[in-house]
Amino acid sequence: MKEKFQDEVILANENFYRAIEESDFERMEELWVGSEDDKCVHPGWPMLYGWEAVGESWKSIFENGGPIGIELTDVRAEVSGDVAWVICIEKISHRLGDEVQSGFAQSTNIFVRTDSSWLLSVHHASPMPTPGGEVSSNESLQ
Amino acid sequence: MKEKFQDEVILANENFYRAIEESDFERMEELWVGSEDDKCVHPGWPMLYGWEAVGESWKSIFENGGPIGIELTDVRAEVSGDVAWVICIEKISHRLGDEVQSGFAQSTNIFVRTDSSWLLSVHHASPMPTPGGEVSSNESLQ
Repeated sequence: MKEKFQDEVILANENFYRAIEESDFERMEELWVGSEDDKCVHPGWPMLYGWEAVGESWKSIFENGGPIGIELTDVRAEVSGDVAWVICIEKISHRLGDEVQSGFAQSTNIFVRTDSSWLLSVHHASPMPTPGGEVSSNESLQ
Repeated sequence: MKEKFQDEVILANENFYRAIEESDFERMEELWVGSEDDKCVHPGWPMLYGWEAVGESWKSIFENGGPIGIELTDVRAEVSGDVAWVICIEKISHRLGDEVQSGFAQSTNIFVRTDSSWLLSVHHASPMPTPGGEVSSNESLQ
C-alpha cells in the first residue's frame, strides 16, 4: 500500500507541475486542498497563507506568462499515513523574447490524502545554486 | 488530542532552534529521526540527503560559529496523524566582529511522531525578503 501511495503522490506532484507549465488555473485549483491552511512560497517570495492568497498568486503568475517548461530531478516521496511529502529540484524555463532562460529551485511539497486523492497543502520552492555545475542558461528558441 | 499534538510539535520546533542557538550537536542529533530519509536545506544551500550529510552540515555550522540567536515569528503547526509540519519565519543573528548581523529565512519543518516524540525529518529554510519593511540590520554589540 505504501508503494501504491508513493506512486500516487508522485503522480499528483507531476500534475501540479503540468498545471504550472500549462498555466491552467482550473486544474491548479483542483490539485490543492483549498483551505485556509494551504501555504505557498514561490522562489524568493514570502509565504502566502490560505487558498485565497495562494490561488491569486497562481492567477497572477499565469496572467503574466508563467514558465514554459519545468523539468524535475531528484524526486523523492515519503508517505506516512494520510500525509506525504515530495522533495524535488525544478529546472524552470521562461521565455524572454526570443530566448529561453532557465533557473533552478529546490521544492518541498506536502500532500494530504482526502477522499482518495492526494491534495497539495504546502508548496515551498526556493532559489538554489545550479546543481552539478550546470550554468543557468540562456538558450536560443530556434 | 490534536491540540496536544500541536503544542508538542511547536515545542519540538522550539527545541530545534534552541539547539542551533546553543551550537549543541548532541541535542540536535536527538531531535532528528536520524535515518537516510532525513533531508535538510540550509538557506541558499542545496538539499542534503540522509542524517549522515545533515549531521555533518550542523557540525560544520557549529564549528564555524553558528547563529547567536534565532527569533521565530508566524509559527503555524498542522498535525495529521503521526505527521506534523511547522511553518515559521526565522530572524537569524550572527556575530560579525563587534556587530550583530540579522537576516530572515522562511522555514518548513516536517516532524514525524516516533515512540511518543516528534522528530524532525525535513528542514527546508530559504532566504526571504525582510518582512514588514524591517531592514536587515547591523546592530552594535556594545
